[in-house]
Order: sequence, then structure tokens, then C-alpha cells
Amino acid sequence: MMAEAGVAPRRGRGGGGAARRAERTAIRIETAKYIERNIPNFEILSEEALEIIETNAETVLAEIGVNFVNNPGALALWREAGAEVEGERVRIPRGLARQLCQTAPESFTQHARNPEKNVVIGGKSLVCAPVYGPPFVRDAAGGRRYATMEDFRNFVKLGYMSKYLHHSGGTVCEPTDVPVNKRHLDMLLAHMTLSDKPFMGSVTEPSRAQDSVEMCEILFGKDFVQQNTVMTSLININSPMTFDDVMMGALEIYAKNNQACIVSPFIVGGAMAPVSVAGTLTQVLAEVLAGIAYSQLVRPGAPVIFGAFVTSIDMNSGAPTFGTPEASQILYGAGQLARRMKLPFRSGGGLCASKLPDAQAAYETANTLNAALLGGVNFMLHACGWLEGGLVSSYEKFVMDADQLGVLHKMAAGVSVDENAQAMGAIAEVGPGGHYLGCAHTQANFKEAFWRSDLLDYKPFETWEEEGARDTQALASARVAHLLNSYQQPALDPEIAAALNAYVAAKKASMPDAFM
Amino acid sequence: MMAEAGVAPRRGRGGGGAARRAERTAIRIETAKYIERNIPNFEILSEEALEIIETNAETVLAEIGVNFVNNPGALALWREAGAEVEGERVRIPRGLARQLCQTAPESFTQHARNPEKNVVIGGKSLVCAPVYGPPFVRDAAGGRRYATMEDFRNFVKLGYMSKYLHHSGGTVCEPTDVPVNKRHLDMLLAHMTLSDKPFMGSVTEPSRAQDSVEMCEILFGKDFVQQNTVMTSLININSPMTFDDVMMGALEIYAKNNQACIVSPFIVGGAMAPVSVAGTLTQVLAEVLAGIAYSQLVRPGAPVIFGAFVTSIDMNSGAPTFGTPEASQILYGAGQLARRMKLPFRSGGGLCASKLPDAQAAYETANTLNAALLGGVNFMLHACGWLEGGLVSSYEKFVMDADQLGVLHKMAAGVSVDENAQAMGAIAEVGPGGHYLGCAHTQANFKEAFWRSDLLDYKPFETWEEEGARDTQALASARVAHLLNSYQQPALDPEIAAALNAYVAAKKASMPDAFM
Repeated sequence: MMAEAGVAPRRGRGGGGAARRAERTAIRIETAKYIERNIPNFEILSEEALEIIETNAETVLAEIGVNFVNNPGALALWREAGAEVEGERVRIPRGLARQLCQTAPESFTQHARNPEKNVVIGGKSLVCAPVYGPPFVRDAAGGRRYATMEDFRNFVKLGYMSKYLHHSGGTVCEPTDVPVNKRHLDMLLAHMTLSDKPFMGSVTEPSRAQDSVEMCEILFGKDFVQQNTVMTSLININSPMTFDDVMMGALEIYAKNNQACIVSPFIVGGAMAPVSVAGTLTQVLAEVLAGIAYSQLVRPGAPVIFGAFVTSIDMNSGAPTFGTPEASQILYGAGQLARRMKLPFRSGGGLCASKLPDAQAAYETANTLNAALLGGVNFMLHACGWLEGGLVSSYEKFVMDADQLGVLHKMAAGVSVDENAQAMGAIAEVGPGGHYLGCAHTQANFKEAFWRSDLLDYKPFETWEEEGARDTQALASARVAHLLNSYQQPALDPEIAAALNAYVAAKKASMPDAFM
Repeated sequence: MMAEAGVAPRRGRGGGGAARRAERTAIRIETAKYIERNIPNFEILSEEALEIIETNAETVLAEIGVNFVNNPGALALWREAGAEVEGERVRIPRGLARQLCQTAPESFTQHARNPEKNVVIGGKSLVCAPVYGPPFVRDAAGGRRYATMEDFRNFVKLGYMSKYLHHSGGTVCEPTDVPVNKRHLDMLLAHMTLSDKPFMGSVTEPSRAQDSVEMCEILFGKDFVQQNTVMTSLININSPMTFDDVMMGALEIYAKNNQACIVSPFIVGGAMAPVSVAGTLTQVLAEVLAGIAYSQLVRPGAPVIFGAFVTSIDMNSGAPTFGTPEASQILYGAGQLARRMKLPFRSGGGLCASKLPDAQAAYETANTLNAALLGGVNFMLHACGWLEGGLVSSYEKFVMDADQLGVLHKMAAGVSVDENAQAMGAIAEVGPGGHYLGCAHTQANFKEAFWRSDLLDYKPFETWEEEGARDTQALASARVAHLLNSYQQPALDPEIAAALNAYVAAKKASMPDAFM
């Protein structure tokens, strides 16, 4: 079990006896390296279809344009770059946005405070981060309830202990018991101190993005932050084609500080985009072109990710739906468009509409996870824990999905055809009518041969029944409890921890609580 | 709802007032056409890897060989064809098996008694058939118990009423309350009279395959059966590399009568094949080459399917595991090998190890269904209802999986980029900051735009909670009851029905019961 891998000292920054004592008691948690695909991508769109969509996206930008709201600075930058600005509408001549996007890097490294957990985002990589944004949490014992800061810390701990999760994420749930204007401080402090994986910054106010940068300067050092990317943050576009000043303000702070942004249309198809896959992809591409071009106007070379969060809709109820064929088709198509721009691609996740971590949740989630792997996603937010259309962070689903991410790792490794994998000696040794369990090749290879779940039930029926005939949710509840009970905080230089605490305390003291 | 689509008369064969009365009361059930893919296949193996596996498979056939057990006729055919026969071992010179396979058709039509439900197997098609073989059934109310003939009939009825299921299957569960030597008669009678979809024949004894042919001659007419394929039956190879006389005897009957056989290695990796993906694919290819070559020795041109039923294994417990990355890799690789032989391909299904229709079952199932769609499967047995490693036919999982098959249909249709799908008018009409719900394009297209589950929950949280906070299993239980309560038997010429009943009665009377 990954959480019980024993004590292993780790050298950190800084020093002092307290730091060394902290290090000696740290448990080493096994974390799989981010996925590097050794398999092809699945490409659903033909060259002709891609060209139609790309041409149409340029038409949208040139003839319809996009709105940059309450943002005179952005309008000025666009005017200077050659766009036609009329009020808040920005019409971008054909080819200009794509040309501006060319300064964005094809991939980048996001640094973690534990360098072993740095991640490369782009190319053939897939980095998995947990659910982002739910105001509610659910577990089997407590049901559905508003999320608190204690829940937030629990999810950060679970993320830290999840082998196949590479990233600590951002708003793993909304801590509704902390004032809105101070939440980001507690959330960042939790990611920085309870985990050593990379994390995301605040985007709910430009000033909170600035706070995020400043806390990173304490954690990593000021020079390090300016020279390296230590946060990847989520900038949603208000689809259709609207870039609001809050999100753009946060993007500006991050881009100026060399920090990464996911520029991501947030689309419920049929409401924020056309009901057709091709129409939605056209709008997604136009929006991403405009958003990423803008990031490069702010700072050429700023790291960015082509985002696409697109769900279908149940036209009977208006509810967003997940794991549907149209959502997968859009994901596959968006991946192709992103690769043609040579940009890292964000989509997918353990998305589902179900209210419970049941079969519906798992069908919908698995459909999306499979599409994300084969569709070339480089950064997968919501990879675990997402429930009820993103309204709920589920404890049980967090560990269920996190376990399934292991399937993606092994799948992505591809198929070896080296001499050992060819196994011709074994086939000859066993021969017709024999069996392989005892043969030399099996003995030499069985430990690595097959991926094995740490959660799911593989027991004989009688044993399973004697143990209470538990379903997946019950197995997951037990695993959550086990992980949280055995959690140990990763070592952090006490001087840095003290400085972070002092920063948070001072910031909180500097303003009254606000709850909206 | 598909079961409530109203009455529609249908013209059948034969005549008489009773037949017309039967037709007038028949309910028309909506059945989706078998899937015709308009998307590419996912190809995990490189050309180099494929050539290595193909070369190695020829080496296995030439140097190790395969066993045809208790089958002097088969040995004689092989000797005559140029193989080296030593005892029951058949060594096949390089290239011979592949050459013999060339007479097998690239695709074929399996006829149903309702011609609207004929299926094409091969090329870009995907035909879905239900679970095959479990001795147990499970439902939420009754738990796990031995299957009976009443269960069998219920599953045939559910299959008949499942929109996205194209095929009635074969042993949808083992009717353990009927003597072993008479079961096949009741099972075939159920498929022929309770459904009008295509079905499978018996393979448990060559004489039972002969009975299957004779019952088809009653149902379809003798000439029709000789000129057309009306059954697709499952011939498992005893891996590694053993062809037993019972299965080969059934294959011989079917091939001689122009009926289709799936020639399918049945492999739990690590036990019946090497623990490596490449080694397993080598053995699968060698076995299929030998089996299909043999079918063509029996009757050149006999319709056959390249089968691959391969699971991974939990090396801790020895239990077969499903929905794993290795199983998907083998499926993808086997699909490539089958296409290079220009043969229809069978694999996949709603496979899972879980004891319950819970999240584990759905993750594992969805992983396999996605691989089957993208891996080019043409005939998918076990597409719905499979539980507990195939030991159990689950009522709830049958309707859950059957609903998910709708995802595959829409996904396979691909992405249109015609003018309507481009939706440029809608994007211009709505513009930045608008919304699409009311626009003309949405109104014109919303009915067909998004696939919608007939089972899963898309309701607002409050409604869902008021209605009992049901999980997927509970929703599925309700659907099973609704379908079985509203089932109406499809019309069949009473003379044919009487002749089938008389055949079954006479056969049963001709021999004492046998229970093993």
C-alpha cells in the first residue's frame, strides 16, 4: 500500500535542527511519475474537417469578434497589435491571433516544492489533478453538505497520498466556512504545507492572484518564481466569447510573473455554444485563440494551456450531462486543434452527473477518462472526486477515480515487443494443453505484468460475501478512513512554514471578512 | 420509451387468419440498426510490432503446432492440406494457415426472422449481443441464485426490448432447471419465438448443433438456411493451442451448413497464455489462424469471425480481472491483426469482475466498451448483463449496459461538418455574451443533438432526493420490471410455431434426461 511505504529521509531547502527533525519523521509517499504516452492519439476529425473549423474560427474572430469587458488595458493592447476595437468588442484579423499564439511554449515544467514531483505539461505528457470548485462535499456516512476548510484539508491529504495523482490541484472544494476574501489564503497554505505536489493559484480576484504569487515567493524564493513556473491556474472564458475583467486580471498577474494559465472555454453545449459538435469546436477554437493571443500580448512566452471544458446538455431538463458521446467527440476534436497549434491541452476529468458514486458515476467517468487519455490531454483537472455535475466533491469517488487513474498509466505505457515480451520461449515451454502459471517466463514477469487495483474487489465470491458483500462505495469509505488515519505531513522547513503562516495572518488581519 | 412506441402491423411469412390475428396484436419495438462506424480505429501497435507478432505466430504453428484432439477427420484434412501431423499434433508450414484463411468472407449478413433486424458482421460494423454462459442470475430483489429457464426467457425478452442490442445472443444464462441434453432446445425455442432478432446456435455437442440447424430450417425454410447465414455460434479454443472434438464437431456442422462461427481463444492471461501482451497476441493469432484455416478446410467460404476473449489475472488471487489496461491493449492489437487478415473481429463486451452492478462494474465495463468501439470490434458478445467474471447474468446490469450501448452508437456516427453542423449562423446570431437555448439553430437541431440515456438520472438534486435518492441499480430494477411488464411477443406464423414446438417435444421424448 502506497501510504505505508515506510520512512525515508528527504533533503529540503533551508536548515536548522527543527527542519532536520521534521525531515526525519516524514513518511515517503509513492507518487507515480506523470504519464508519458507511448501510444498514438485518437484522431476523430479528418484534415478537411479540421481546416473547415480553423477557417470558421478565424471568421468568428474577424467578423463577430470577442468582448473584453471592463478592461481598457486589454483593449489598448489589442488595438496596438492590429485588432479592430469597437467599444468592448475586439475583432481580430484573420491569422493574427494564431500568429500571436506562436510565442507560447509547446510544453513547460511546473515545479513542485519536492522536485521529484515536478510535472511537464505538454507534448506526450498527461498530468492528473483533482476536482476543482464544488461548494458541497459528500461521503457515505455524512451525506451531502456544504464544504468546509476541514474538508478542503482532507482532500489535499488524500491527493497527497494518491499514487496516480500528480498534482494537488486548486479549489478541491469551496471552504464555505471561511470568508470569501480570505479563503484563497487558507487554501494555498493547505496545498503548500499538507502536500508537496504542484498546485494551482487563486483566480477569483486579481489581488488574490497577486497573493498567490507572493506566497509562492515565500515557499520557493522570489528569484525562483520569476524564473520558473510554480503555479498552473484556471482562467475560464465566459462563453460565448466574453473575457471578463476578473479572470483576465488574474491572467495578467500570472502571465507577468511567468506563471501558467489554462485558458478554457466553459461550455454547456446548446446553452453557451451551438448544439453541434463542429459549431462548438469552432467557438472553442476562436475563444482559445483570442485568450491565448492575449496572454502573449501581456508577456510573450508566458506558459499557457489550450483548455476545453465542454459538456452536453439534457434538452428535457437543461441539466448538463457527462460521459456522453458528444462530449467525447468534442474532446477528441479539441485535442487535434490544440496539437496543430503546438500547445498543451487541458480537458477531461472524472466527470459525471450522478448524485452518488454509483454505476452511473462510473460509466460517465470512465467514458471521459478514456477519451482524455486517447485524446491527448496534457493536463486533466477533475481527474478524481467530481460528483453531481461538479457541485459535489465526493470522498469515496476521490479514491475510486484516483485508483482508476492507474489504468491510464499502464495503458499509456504501450505494448513492448522486446524479446522478453515476445515470450516465444514460454509458448514453446508450455505447448498445447499446458498452463503458464508455473513457467519460468511467468515467474520472472508476473509482478509487473498486470495492473492491479488497490481498491476494487477481486476476491472469491464466498470471501466477499463473508466480509459483508461490500459495494465499491463501501470499499472506498474504508480506504478514505485508512488514508486519512495514516496521513503524515511532508516535511517543510519550519522557517518557511512560519513565514507562510505570518503572511496569511497579516493578510487576514488587513481586511474585514466578506462573504460574497 | 422504446417499449411504448405503439402498434404497427408487420407482414410475415406464411398466412392464415391466425397469423394475421397474431400480427395485429404485435407491438413494434424500436431497434437501432447495427453500428456502422464513421470514425477511425485506434491502432496501438506499430507496423514493426505487427510484423513481429505475425512472424512469431507462424513460428508457433510451424515449430510447436496445435493439437486437434479425438478428431481423426480433422487430422486427415490437415495432412491433405500439407501440414505435418504427428499423433494429434498438427504443425502447419509457414504461410499455409494464412493462405487457407483467404477463402473466409470479409463480412457476412446474418439473417433474422424479421429482415429489418438482419445484421452485417465485418467491415465497419459493430453488432451487439448480450451476455453468454452464466450459471447464476442476480437481481436486487432476489440476490444471486442458479439460473432457470424462466430467467432465460426473461433475458430474451429484455434483449428483444433493448433498442441498442442488435442480437438476441445465445446462452443468455444457463437454464439449470432443464436437463443438460435438452436445454438447447428450450433455449433456441425461446430465441425463435420470444424475439425476432438474430441468435446463436448450440455448441455443447455436435448433435445439438445439428438440432440448431434443423430448428432453423423450420423457422426460415430449408433452402433459405443453406443459402444464407442464420446463426453465429461461439466456438472456443481450449487455449493454449488445443482444439477439442466437441467444439470442432460443432464447427464442422455449422461450416458445412454455411452457418457462421466465432473462432475464439478463451484466455486468462498468465494461465492460458504468457503474461505479456505481445506473447498473448502471438498465441491468439496462431490459434485463430489454425482454427479459421480448419473451418475453410471443412468448407471454403464458410463465414467465420476472428475471436479474442482475453482477460488479465490478479496474480494475488488467481482471479480473472476485467477492464484492465492489458486487456484493452490486447483487444486493440487483436483488432489490428484481424483487419490485416480481412476477417470480422469479435472481442469486448460489458466485462467486469464486480459481484454487484456498482461503480466497479461500471468502470470495468465502460473501459471495455470504449476499447471495443475504438478497437474495431464487429461482433460484441457480452455487450450487456455480464457480472462477476461471467458467473452471473444480472437483470439490472443488463438494462444499464444496454443503455450505455447508445453511447457507442452516437460516438461511432462521427462528427458532421456540413453547413448545418458548422452553425456559423448561430454563432453570429448569438454573439459574445448571448445564449443559444432560444436561437433558431438550437430549436431546429436540439432533438437529435445530444444522446440521452433512457435510464440514468439527470434530475435536479431536490427532485431526485424527493423521489427516494435512488442509485443506478434501483433505477435499473424499476426499468427491468417496466420492460417485463410491458413485453409483448412478436408475431410468428402459428404453423411455424407449432412445428417448432412439435420438433422440440419429439426431440425431448427421444432421449432420457441427462444432467451432466
